[in-house]
Amino acid sequence: MSSTDTSKVERHERRVEVCFSPKQFELYKEEFHTCVVIDVLRATSAICAGLANGVDRIIPVPTVEEARALQAEGCIAAAERNGQIVEGFDFGNSPRSYLTDELVGKTVALTTTNGTKAIAMAQDMPLVAIGSINNLDAISTWLMQQPGHVVLLCSGWKDKFNLEDTICAGAIADRLIDIARYKSIEDSTIAAKHLFLGVRGNIFSFLKASSHRRRLRNLNLGEDIKYCLTPNTVNVVPVLHEGALVDSRTLQVAEAEG
Amino acid sequence: MSSTDTSKVERHERRVEVCFSPKQFELYKEEFHTCVVIDVLRATSAICAGLANGVDRIIPVPTVEEARALQAEGCIAAAERNGQIVEGFDFGNSPRSYLTDELVGKTVALTTTNGTKAIAMAQDMPLVAIGSINNLDAISTWLMQQPGHVVLLCSGWKDKFNLEDTICAGAIADRLIDIARYKSIEDSTIAAKHLFLGVRGNIFSFLKASSHRRRLRNLNLGEDIKYCLTPNTVNVVPVLHEGALVDSRTLQVAEAEG
Repeated sequence: MSSTDTSKVERHERRVEVCFSPKQFELYKEEFHTCVVIDVLRATSAICAGLANGVDRIIPVPTVEEARALQAEGCIAAAERNGQIVEGFDFGNSPRSYLTDELVGKTVALTTTNGTKAIAMAQDMPLVAIGSINNLDAISTWLMQQPGHVVLLCSGWKDKFNLEDTICAGAIADRLIDIARYKSIEDSTIAAKHLFLGVRGNIFSFLKASSHRRRLRNLNLGEDIKYCLTPNTVNVVPVLHEGALVDSRTLQVAEAEG
Repeated sequence: MSSTDTSKVERHERRVEVCFSPKQFELYKEEFHTCVVIDVLRATSAICAGLANGVDRIIPVPTVEEARALQAEGCIAAAERNGQIVEGFDFGNSPRSYLTDELVGKTVALTTTNGTKAIAMAQDMPLVAIGSINNLDAISTWLMQQPGHVVLLCSGWKDKFNLEDTICAGAIADRLIDIARYKSIEDSTIAAKHLFLGVRGNIFSFLKASSHRRRLRNLNLGEDIKYCLTPNTVNVVPVLHEGALVDSRTLQVAEAEG
């Protein structure tokens, strides 16, 4: 008997599952076509903000050293560790810092504590996209247009479970199951959906209790948190293409023209 | 900044946290005094059933080979893998098979897919106890009488999250927080509590959706599932002592006499 009971999923049906942490990802990744990386506070919210604001490409790198190397080559580089901008970098993962005109049309290298590490773990998947509460409708609709099974990878906090990523994943899973009849067989997906359905309409006050949110509040990042927890402020789906995150629409145009 | 924000917990306060899977345990174990291992379907329910029925000691071993070696030495041995009794063993982890008179006063060696692996991971903790839905009141009351922080380790299914262990952990955490003012700072604990509070009074029907329960149903283990999901059928707290699980009351009597 395999570790998951897939007997309940018909061959033609698409699956959506939630993986709570990068540490669990090896147990989930094998059967999936598309991976959506989620780091609500704040990496994937920042990536959505940047691309929606006209940033051309965001190159996610797992280490500060790699961000420094790209910076040395003349690339604009951003680095965050433990909620703060790393010394020697102009910005980190605050989504609001990506809304400036100076970044329009530019390439940005980005490393963060959790999000870019999760992206690095997912990079061998056939299709990698970025999800956040800010692009909930956009990512859900886009996913339904793609073939194959979907795994929603929560970046968590230093490999531990966190609530905001799980609730965002639960919201996406709920839409795919409800609107497009995706199936799920993992208990993690049932739990994420249940947590989302229990708090929808009230995500902000539920997450007051969240450990990571509390940590960010200690760093006076209240405005960022409000920004990241507001649904559907952007209509962009960042996808990984040749090592960089780009707006999925740009890619389609390029493919149609090519 | 450490990976957990412990600044909210005063020195004299006790913490309770939920760890969703053995794969996450190394991230949690360091700060805790007592570890409660939970494998509702079915290892920890079987251990509670056995000790409540008068089994003297249950020796948990992680591998089938170790169970075979103890069997060769004349020990009664039980082995389960993937929900079924391993060939060459008389019984596995069905709690109901531990209710026979033949086992009263005996020592049993036990290996299971998830539960005994989790116990092995916890064995270096100062205090290791066994929790299940069957001994919910007993384990909660006993914990409140112990010093130090408590981590509730869900055995999961092959390192993945499962619902029944999480809901059991959420129930224990809820009592410690509610009755004895334990603190928690991990999002996993908030989620487990939330999942429990959302389904209490109706655990059985909620868990109809559980992947592991579905797997056991395929093996015609309906009676076992009903047994394991019934709260407070036994008043026993199995604790690990010199490599074997024994009734905590026996231990106290022995210590008082010694």
